[in-house]
Amino acid sequence: MTNTPSDRPAIVLLSGGLDSATCLAIAREQSFAPHCVSFDYGQRHRFELDAAAQLATALGAASHRTVTIDPQAFAGSALTTGPAVPKHAPDDEIPPTIPVTYVPARNLVFLAYATGLAEVLGAADIFIGVNAVDYSGYPDCRPEFVEAFAAAANLATKAGVDGGRLNIQTPLIDLTKSEIIVKGVRLGIDYAQTHSCYDPAPDGGACGACDACLLRRRGFEQAGVADPTRYAS
Amino acid sequence: MTNTPSDRPAIVLLSGGLDSATCLAIAREQSFAPHCVSFDYGQRHRFELDAAAQLATALGAASHRTVTIDPQAFAGSALTTGPAVPKHAPDDEIPPTIPVTYVPARNLVFLAYATGLAEVLGAADIFIGVNAVDYSGYPDCRPEFVEAFAAAANLATKAGVDGGRLNIQTPLIDLTKSEIIVKGVRLGIDYAQTHSCYDPAPDGGACGACDACLLRRRGFEQAGVADPTRYAS
Repeated sequence: MTNTPSDRPAIVLLSGGLDSATCLAIAREQSFAPHCVSFDYGQRHRFELDAAAQLATALGAASHRTVTIDPQAFAGSALTTGPAVPKHAPDDEIPPTIPVTYVPARNLVFLAYATGLAEVLGAADIFIGVNAVDYSGYPDCRPEFVEAFAAAANLATKAGVDGGRLNIQTPLIDLTKSEIIVKGVRLGIDYAQTHSCYDPAPDGGACGACDACLLRRRGFEQAGVADPTRYAS
Repeated sequence: MTNTPSDRPAIVLLSGGLDSATCLAIAREQSFAPHCVSFDYGQRHRFELDAAAQLATALGAASHRTVTIDPQAFAGSALTTGPAVPKHAPDDEIPPTIPVTYVPARNLVFLAYATGLAEVLGAADIFIGVNAVDYSGYPDCRPEFVEAFAAAANLATKAGVDGGRLNIQTPLIDLTKSEIIVKGVRLGIDYAQTHSCYDPAPDGGACGACDACLLRRRGFEQAGVADPTRYAS
């Protein structure tokens, strides 16, 4: 990772997971000054917020803030107030339908908030670690959503009206999970600091069997990288 | 206003101002069951939140909630932490540039949140009282923004993926302020209950000189309707 000073502020959506950590490292590699934002929306896997704070420091963020989102809009998801997080056997296929862990309009809300923050901080770039290859089937991770959002955000803001351009950067969109891991290792990320599990044990250990754990575990296997995740079982 | 029972839930963005109150009355007239949402985003004119709660009851909302939005994304606007709200003489032209009362990406954030809420409540319609005729020059009140947002929201959500459709309803978009007032009076709105001023006196009296007061006052004049606003001076 370079330490080139930069005057170009960027917003980085940092959940504390593997993908967003890699996204932050890529923003730094591209000489942005990354201003990270994490969201507390009543998620069951709140360990990710501690991970986010730690990662922001470790990966050279220019700033980090945790923003509380009133969880009323997100009720009913398995990640918040809804049914239990589904578990899988290690070799299970993840079905190609929208899972119960889908949180209504989550990335739409996160990106909208980041757009406001970008205007306040004078940033023309927002990084989001969405990924359309090894992902959980959420509609708001698809490239067509990101493109449509960018069009709306540019029409909503002063930047867009003044002839500027807000860019939604999705450096992971076409990468497999293992390619993301290989890239992150090259950029010096300690993935032990990242938290992916949707249903961690009380001490933060990963369950090893939810969608997020399964995709993560397979990613490390395919990358040929030792999996540093602390599993509960 | 009809009292037709309805099973069609809709989300109505209710600021407590004249436009959103009229929007709520129109949603009721169209036999929707309106679930209203107001946002506490650190605005100086917080009197509007009390007005919103009162209006929701008076105009037959199915529910009303006030959602807190972390104001970090909205910093610097004259409506929050920025410079003083500009005042005008009664005959001033409102300049056609984006004013300092613009709040970064506000309608983008509000609509994104409403989209999540629509999924949670099973609503296919979101009403927003934006208006592109007698308005303050905010980019996120233009029809092209609303259309682009609807495209993004439909791609972001389960409804869109499942072949459903989320509709962003803008019944005021082509109306002048006086036409809005005439319509609202016909629907039985008591505009004394609405609050438009960006910079009210400590007792809630309207300043009479900010953009919002000026547009409102002229609207009543042009409509030939007695202005029920309680002015501070």
